Amino acid sequence: MTISNQSKVLTTDNMNPLIKNVEYAVRGRLAIRAEEIRTDIEQGAKYPFDKVVNCNIGNPQQLNQAPITFFRQVASLCDNPDLLKKEHRSLVSQLYPTDALERAETLLHSIGSVGAYSHSQGVPHIRNTVAQFIKERDGYSADPNHIYLTQGASAGVQTLLSMLTENEHSGIMIPIPQYPLYSATLSLYGATPVHYYLDESTGWSLDIKQLTQVVTQARKQGTDVRALVIINPGNPTGQCLEADNLQDIISFCYKERLVLLADEVYQTNIYEPEKRPFISFKKALMDHPDAEVREGLELVSFHSISKGMIGECGRRGGYFECVNLDQGIMDQIYKMASVSLCPNLHGQILVDLMCNPPRFGEPSYDSYTAEIKTIYDSLRRRSKKLQDCFNNLEGVSCQPAQGAMYLFPQVTLSNKVVQEAKKANIAPDAYYSHAMLEATGVCVVPGSGFGQKDNTWHFRSTFLPEEHLFDKFCSDLEKFHHQFLKDHRD
Amino acid sequence: MTISNQSKVLTTDNMNPLIKNVEYAVRGRLAIRAEEIRTDIEQGAKYPFDKVVNCNIGNPQQLNQAPITFFRQVASLCDNPDLLKKEHRSLVSQLYPTDALERAETLLHSIGSVGAYSHSQGVPHIRNTVAQFIKERDGYSADPNHIYLTQGASAGVQTLLSMLTENEHSGIMIPIPQYPLYSATLSLYGATPVHYYLDESTGWSLDIKQLTQVVTQARKQGTDVRALVIINPGNPTGQCLEADNLQDIISFCYKERLVLLADEVYQTNIYEPEKRPFISFKKALMDHPDAEVREGLELVSFHSISKGMIGECGRRGGYFECVNLDQGIMDQIYKMASVSLCPNLHGQILVDLMCNPPRFGEPSYDSYTAEIKTIYDSLRRRSKKLQDCFNNLEGVSCQPAQGAMYLFPQVTLSNKVVQEAKKANIAPDAYYSHAMLEATGVCVVPGSGFGQKDNTWHFRSTFLPEEHLFDKFCSDLEKFHHQFLKDHRD
Repeated sequence: MTISNQSKVLTTDNMNPLIKNVEYAVRGRLAIRAEEIRTDIEQGAKYPFDKVVNCNIGNPQQLNQAPITFFRQVASLCDNPDLLKKEHRSLVSQLYPTDALERAETLLHSIGSVGAYSHSQGVPHIRNTVAQFIKERDGYSADPNHIYLTQGASAGVQTLLSMLTENEHSGIMIPIPQYPLYSATLSLYGATPVHYYLDESTGWSLDIKQLTQVVTQARKQGTDVRALVIINPGNPTGQCLEADNLQDIISFCYKERLVLLADEVYQTNIYEPEKRPFISFKKALMDHPDAEVREGLELVSFHSISKGMIGECGRRGGYFECVNLDQGIMDQIYKMASVSLCPNLHGQILVDLMCNPPRFGEPSYDSYTAEIKTIYDSLRRRSKKLQDCFNNLEGVSCQPAQGAMYLFPQVTLSNKVVQEAKKANIAPDAYYSHAMLEATGVCVVPGSGFGQKDNTWHFRSTFLPEEHLFDKFCSDLEKFHHQFLKDHRD
Repeated sequence: MTISNQSKVLTTDNMNPLIKNVEYAVRGRLAIRAEEIRTDIEQGAKYPFDKVVNCNIGNPQQLNQAPITFFRQVASLCDNPDLLKKEHRSLVSQLYPTDALERAETLLHSIGSVGAYSHSQGVPHIRNTVAQFIKERDGYSADPNHIYLTQGASAGVQTLLSMLTENEHSGIMIPIPQYPLYSATLSLYGATPVHYYLDESTGWSLDIKQLTQVVTQARKQGTDVRALVIINPGNPTGQCLEADNLQDIISFCYKERLVLLADEVYQTNIYEPEKRPFISFKKALMDHPDAEVREGLELVSFHSISKGMIGECGRRGGYFECVNLDQGIMDQIYKMASVSLCPNLHGQILVDLMCNPPRFGEPSYDSYTAEIKTIYDSLRRRSKKLQDCFNNLEGVSCQPAQGAMYLFPQVTLSNKVVQEAKKANIAPDAYYSHAMLEATGVCVVPGSGFGQKDNTWHFRSTFLPEEHLFDKFCSDLEKFHHQFLKDHRD
């Protein structure tokens, strides 16, 4: 026994209570257990499977999705500018296409060195690229001074939520189910989450009438509701909102005096593009018929390099665009960015590349488009395949993923499961997910980590496992589920 | 006039008041003005100088310090693993030394892809490297599970300070003068800063008796003092603490039940290594004669890739080591790291390289040591030169930099300056620094941004401008200072 255990200065009893309250299921208990199993297996322990498959997190390159060649070429040249020197040109031109060399030169000209702190809001040149990207996407211009580069979308979301929290009565509307970054961040800042429910029976659609009821009710109870979070395409739910719905949401926010936070990180993960194309909230706002709304609604839209077909999660890059925000607030956001000095340059560079990929006629255009298409087609096939697999399981129903990287099936669980889970002091879907991990090595996230209607149970799984392993992946899940039901019949 | 200005939902009147209170002078008003001037000059405007020189921030590569070749070679190979393929070997081996190729292979073997999220605490292999580095530095082993990789030291400091803040009475002792990350972060979390003063007359030394008085006084006034921050080598003050002093500080913290936060990011920026070598708090703790203290004192030590001779600020990488912390607290730190998913991989890779540079006998050893020595010798020369320059100015006195990257001279300012500053509603040293910027293009940080004894005035300047420009840099400062005094005599 050590001397000190009873006498620590800082313990979970006297630490920041807000931090203690934070829950983040995506990398929670189950993920920690998965990590233990992975280590065990490395050290020779036997499990009913060869390896752990992390379907708990949208981390494509961990599951061997190849990076986009052009992006990595440019990034590596920025890291090693010696390669751009004239004396190396004859060698280097055998390894790199000319457009990669040119892009690296352009970036380094504006950045200086990737080893230097940049402007705290992000390199001006890269913010111009983002503004141009938004203009091409939406048909409406964007102001580079209203764009902030971030270390992933999460960092941007946290900045905005902290800005919005005046005190514990400050309320932020978040969907249920939601990506738990939102609930975790509201816990951290001590704000009040105000829940609205997505409707599973209609493909997780968003009912505008419910929003009005929810905000009215919360305000009656003394909550100062000041913002609405929309995740589109949805996470974990995969729905993709239609134009009319977007307009209604905008009108609602303006009328109810809510800042609209639009998490649009899955904007290129769209699997039914004809029926349900992605429309940005920025475009929907600029299309709004009422000038007062267009010039008044405070909108912040988040994007990331971690998702789409790019999947550069490990670089931590992203941006947010502020529309109609008070200048004083934007100055405060800048100040807070400056305390953290700047977003990392490798993330910033990838934002530039994502927003300005090779164009038609440029040397890397064909390979770039082919790589993107290969990943996209495969994601779409896998999404459909996993959805079918889930829907074929007894007592499971799964809505299609119109977008994003996840499926969120509902599982009917027996009373026996509910009782066993109670004994183990975990949610029934966590009990189910733990059993899945121990039997198959597949790590998912229990629905209770995202929120769900009472007495319904879900889990979230990415459809990212490699395609050539996908049949086995599905059959392992089937086998497990069958056995689990058998073991837990009432 | 827009419709919306009077009716913003979120304004500086109803935003998070803690954020509003945050001040961060390093990138404050003066730095914003410097940015404006830079843009003006780019657009052809005339100033009494050709360019802005940012001495407000330790950002070596912005001022053209060359990166370490081996580090960038490895990083670029990790970014573009195609270069490691056999078919490219004959070309690539003409551009890269074998040890860079091997290191990249080792790193990629443990990381997978730099585009994937890693373990939230940092890649296990890299944490092992850090542990080995600490062992070699101190002669005492370190536990990789107690090491957390971060996006720069700032992020680590913010994590620990947030953990320590139970409520507004939670007090953290910070030096005056201090790096304003500390005051800014305490404002942000609503904790109470408890100031202790470094003694300028004895080279910014730290008097242990004063620490006792300060903690006693603060506790009498109801502050729950729970941690002590030490910056060693000092920022902005440059002092380097001696072994006896470290031991006394450790004994003091243990006796007074304070967690010790050791900001050691300048540990290799040591300019009087014989007289004042760097000794880590970890080593000082392990050397402590009392086993109860060794096994009891809660210590967190921070390090960074942004400083030293490396200066890779833009990558945002660093780590902290926890010693004797409660396991529950370390679990909470892990949880919070997981909400932000992981530190960026490019920063992590540089931590590996910093902690395990080329060894004697390896192909890159000679060039690595030569590059480090060139930067180090030049920094030391520039430090001395700028110190002499300051000490030759009328009414200015400047302590030597035993370490770090800054000088913090004291300037005597006339009553006229104090009056003019009052009219302009800024501190007298901010007034002086603004005048310096407008006259010379040199951007420094006023001492009021770091804290200082009442009625003394300082500014912080890096000594990072390029050596071939240094004589002009010094003579510009002299000319400005002379004219300023002339214009502001009482």
